[in-house]
Amino acid sequence: MPKPLILVVNDDGITAPGIRALVEAVKNLGEVVVVAPDSPQSGMGHAITINKPLRLTKAHVFDDIDVASYHCSGTPADCVKIAVDKVMHRHPDLCVSGINHGSNSSINVLYSGTMSAAVEASLEGIPAVGFSLLDYRLDADFNAAAYIAKVISEQILKNGLPKATLLNVNIPKLSKEEIKGIKICRQAVAKWEEEYLQRQDPYGRDYYWLTGNFVNHDHGTDTDEWALANGYVSVVPVQYDLTAHHGIAHINQTWTLD
Amino acid sequence: MPKPLILVVNDDGITAPGIRALVEAVKNLGEVVVVAPDSPQSGMGHAITINKPLRLTKAHVFDDIDVASYHCSGTPADCVKIAVDKVMHRHPDLCVSGINHGSNSSINVLYSGTMSAAVEASLEGIPAVGFSLLDYRLDADFNAAAYIAKVISEQILKNGLPKATLLNVNIPKLSKEEIKGIKICRQAVAKWEEEYLQRQDPYGRDYYWLTGNFVNHDHGTDTDEWALANGYVSVVPVQYDLTAHHGIAHINQTWTLD
Repeated sequence: MPKPLILVVNDDGITAPGIRALVEAVKNLGEVVVVAPDSPQSGMGHAITINKPLRLTKAHVFDDIDVASYHCSGTPADCVKIAVDKVMHRHPDLCVSGINHGSNSSINVLYSGTMSAAVEASLEGIPAVGFSLLDYRLDADFNAAAYIAKVISEQILKNGLPKATLLNVNIPKLSKEEIKGIKICRQAVAKWEEEYLQRQDPYGRDYYWLTGNFVNHDHGTDTDEWALANGYVSVVPVQYDLTAHHGIAHINQTWTLD
Repeated sequence: MPKPLILVVNDDGITAPGIRALVEAVKNLGEVVVVAPDSPQSGMGHAITINKPLRLTKAHVFDDIDVASYHCSGTPADCVKIAVDKVMHRHPDLCVSGINHGSNSSINVLYSGTMSAAVEASLEGIPAVGFSLLDYRLDADFNAAAYIAKVISEQILKNGLPKATLLNVNIPKLSKEEIKGIKICRQAVAKWEEEYLQRQDPYGRDYYWLTGNFVNHDHGTDTDEWALANGYVSVVPVQYDLTAHHGIAHINQTWTLD
């Protein structure tokens, strides 16, 4: 039986410390190929590139640990698409995305390039998972997160995932010893309360910076926010069927359409 | 009682014919304000702008029909965020997005800037809907789509929407007389089979264009794809809780974690 084929991608770009930690975490689990953006792509959501062509270039970022790598001029979702079509010599057994510098818990999943890469892989029929560490710093300590990434990747390779389901894994900013365990959770109901900071450029024209506070309105103890606040790794099974199935009957009953 | 306050946004940019058709469709339903991207943003998904500031400029695109308009240098989701914080004088009663030039049915919802703007509005607690016409041409006939947009907007203003639910409305390329009706549907299980077209630039370096075929694997008659193929407008209630709730028990039962 051939070794599992593992695609590694991220949204912080191929030179980010987080992707190196992830590559090192999974490199002994199979044959690893990295296809990652050539520049940071945070907040890109599920953007894809359609109005301009992409570049794909053989890189040598992980030659020191004997892992093949490519960088791509597109978004995280583009990286997965072009990896599947042009780089991988067979269907990958796993796609791991990250380790993101910063949280993708709760509704942050919607804005996340890390998670969109994993969604794209899942659309392609590849078991997929995104990992994010709750530490934005470039020099964050990825030791515990890398250990968690290895444990969860092993579970996926061994047990698979439910159909059309991928995983959103967030890791608290704690040492391996401080982490209490891994909880399978639901996405917390939370929101960003945004405020744009207004400034003037040297020519007297206004410009705006996005700022905001993340507010968790969800008091459940089965959510990712609860797990992270209480020292656990959160694992949310994610689907890309966005249908609000309960809404179908509701609308049929309340609307008057002829 | 004040007139409903309606925010109009899109992803094809403020000068696209589709947004003009939508503004005209809803302008008699309330006070209408347009905040739309200053350039086309197709395929931007739920991208937001975090590494550079935004510009927001009073526009005069709809002065001829007495509707206030602003253009923004960001993505569709950015437009909604900045509209809520900096433009709208009170909480909007409705956000309509589109009319998109091209389909956003099935999994295309994931890549759609049109739908991400509507999702963003729904996150802000604004009843929201995205409209898309199955005709990519700039000179598409928006008459039937505009009529549908008016009918559905009226229903939302009158009956509201289920909590944390928005609508993805796709309109077939048919005349008003040819359209058979409106069906409330689920998102079809489909996928893009992609192939990158490989070319060489004048300097001998490869570049890649995304091409692909949309393949519907879903034989259900309750899907958006079925509705559209059979002459109906499709309305899919959409949620942004991405939790695959059925996956939680599955993983708890199959994984071995200590």
